Amino acid sequence: VAADNRKERLPAPLDTVLEDAVEILPEGGLSSRLEQAAREGRQLRLKLGIDPTAPVVHLGHAVLLRRLRAFQDAGHRVVLIIGDFTARIGDPSGRSQLRPLLDARTVAQNAAGYLEQATLILRDDPDHLEVRHNSEWLEMEAGELLSLLRLATVAQLLEREDFANRLAAGKPLSLLELVYPLLQAYDSVAVRADVEFGGTDQKFNLLLGREIQRAYGQPEQVIVTLPILTGTDGQRKMSKTFGNEIGLSEPPEEIYGKTMSIPDGLMEEYYRLLLGEDPPPLRPRDQKHELAYRIVAWLHGSEAAERAREHFERVVVRKEVPDEVPEAVVGAGTVNVPALLSEALGLSRSEVRRLIDQGGVAVDGRVLPPNCYELPSRELVDRTVRVGKRRFLRLRKAA
Amino acid sequence: VAADNRKERLPAPLDTVLEDAVEILPEGGLSSRLEQAAREGRQLRLKLGIDPTAPVVHLGHAVLLRRLRAFQDAGHRVVLIIGDFTARIGDPSGRSQLRPLLDARTVAQNAAGYLEQATLILRDDPDHLEVRHNSEWLEMEAGELLSLLRLATVAQLLEREDFANRLAAGKPLSLLELVYPLLQAYDSVAVRADVEFGGTDQKFNLLLGREIQRAYGQPEQVIVTLPILTGTDGQRKMSKTFGNEIGLSEPPEEIYGKTMSIPDGLMEEYYRLLLGEDPPPLRPRDQKHELAYRIVAWLHGSEAAERAREHFERVVVRKEVPDEVPEAVVGAGTVNVPALLSEALGLSRSEVRRLIDQGGVAVDGRVLPPNCYELPSRELVDRTVRVGKRRFLRLRKAA
Repeated sequence: VAADNRKERLPAPLDTVLEDAVEILPEGGLSSRLEQAAREGRQLRLKLGIDPTAPVVHLGHAVLLRRLRAFQDAGHRVVLIIGDFTARIGDPSGRSQLRPLLDARTVAQNAAGYLEQATLILRDDPDHLEVRHNSEWLEMEAGELLSLLRLATVAQLLEREDFANRLAAGKPLSLLELVYPLLQAYDSVAVRADVEFGGTDQKFNLLLGREIQRAYGQPEQVIVTLPILTGTDGQRKMSKTFGNEIGLSEPPEEIYGKTMSIPDGLMEEYYRLLLGEDPPPLRPRDQKHELAYRIVAWLHGSEAAERAREHFERVVVRKEVPDEVPEAVVGAGTVNVPALLSEALGLSRSEVRRLIDQGGVAVDGRVLPPNCYELPSRELVDRTVRVGKRRFLRLRKAA
Repeated sequence: VAADNRKERLPAPLDTVLEDAVEILPEGGLSSRLEQAAREGRQLRLKLGIDPTAPVVHLGHAVLLRRLRAFQDAGHRVVLIIGDFTARIGDPSGRSQLRPLLDARTVAQNAAGYLEQATLILRDDPDHLEVRHNSEWLEMEAGELLSLLRLATVAQLLEREDFANRLAAGKPLSLLELVYPLLQAYDSVAVRADVEFGGTDQKFNLLLGREIQRAYGQPEQVIVTLPILTGTDGQRKMSKTFGNEIGLSEPPEEIYGKTMSIPDGLMEEYYRLLLGEDPPPLRPRDQKHELAYRIVAWLHGSEAAERAREHFERVVVRKEVPDEVPEAVVGAGTVNVPALLSEALGLSRSEVRRLIDQGGVAVDGRVLPPNCYELPSRELVDRTVRVGKRRFLRLRKAA
């Protein structure tokens, strides 16, 4: 979370919100672009590209969204680009030949879900949020696309670290994948982006946007890189892939509980990047409660934050069963526990199996042993199952 | 010119004409494809892709064309593909950012010129020669093109030696260029090619054609690689780039004279690859006369060959001025010699300047000194200029 290499001063409150930007390029570019927009009486257009194949928005994204929101509040416009075209072309990562291409309907659903989560932070009035789909401009002719491919060299694209690493490791890297950054860069041309924000790991893509805009005779977007939020494991960047994420639309109790689970060492990073403040002078445990409360209040309001705190105190601290416990119905005979719990709680079966194996599932306080995936119905009916630390389920016999 | 790794036997006369094929893949594939076509009562489709940005067809191409002609004579069909789409997209080589894209008209002219030259060897009746343009199928949508790019990995394309070398040498290699082999490979899908011939340096592209056909669910083309003809310098492969080519539609005297200029060591290669015979048991000089005569006769008939031989004997051997010398008109005042000669003889000005600098231009037997590019009109009028060894021009005063 370093910002010492930045010399540019911006008008408040944008200055505060970009205090911890890692780089703003070109130097002085953002303030002059702001001045230019003010002179011309127009909004800045801030590009935000989203990938509708990964519809979970988490606190890692919130680092960016919070800063974009500040620009909206200052009168500017976020242009949210849904990568529907690229999603329909298929898996760009080459990680799986078998992963199915997303159909238009799934893409639309995912995009709607993304938007719903992102607007927990972003303003969503039409003056400040423009939603676009990249199929609008990427459904071009092959000839146009090939002209775009002339604008970048192979060496340049292989400078992207993940590409270079995968090539060096002999892992498959499809030609399509090499082309994706160019398509993203072209999005900047299509929406005439003034500014693009991204994590420091996005710098390559952001710079390519500038280059392609220049090739198309447009003013080059100012790019802003921001620190990448560490996940709840305290080890790796927050990502659904690593299972260390806190999703914006998770239940308030989950957000609260997960925040309480982060290592003490992340306190300053979370306070700075998510709330724009230093941690208050409290004991670590109280700092964390305050952080959890503030994050829930930010996303879901203070009433939800209040309830989440109470829930946490009762269930995790005092180990009581919460007041309200969801119910599920079990049939007769042998019951498949992972199937039952995954359906009732929205977890995957493999997550439930892992929890069982780790001793994280208990029936009326009795912990299930590893590999215990099937139980007779009578051992479940009228009992309360605890799944992980904070989830409960009351089981009833089918009528 | 090795063929010892080939085990396949084909019906005569195809067997003879492919005696010196370097590889036929898959092994046994060509004979079984021939049998299959015979069973189904259909022609084999032999793909021949041409690049309309390089409209000169030379003896290097004739190595392939001669063999394709044999297949035509056996009843099969050559599908000649004019790369008009790719030519319009621009310079695939990345060698020059400034080289202009070819417009549709130039492409059409070049393609017509290519066809005229190629049909000095190929039969051009519609049953045996199908002419196609790759714009017919490459004018697709960007999405289709991107799906094509999914079918190859970067590592695979960088196996092509020239790509790997240029990347390693830090020379620019555009992404477009990496895509070209895939477009060429897709041509095989579009024309449902049964067979594709190429020089040994084309093996990568030919194999990629098989792979892309497989991905599109088509039977894979049989590929035949042939030795690459050495140019008149005896050093490098024949190519317009190296200026060591003998063009099929050059004047018979030029073809004859250039053939007489090749090193003795190329005799066997030229006889085998161009005439399909061993050199006759004659002295080297007579072998070469015979070769030159046979090549001209093949391309332009025996009458032209007769005249070319006489011309060579008179002008080169006995150093006489030929009977018929073209004429050109010079104006008054100072005359720019490179401009005059380039226009009259169809050479480039830089070629003429080089010839002057090398002592290869003489006026009435007096050799012009290096850098002598301008002469007073009176020193030229009513004189005969010799340009190189075999070209003459008679100069007259403007009326």
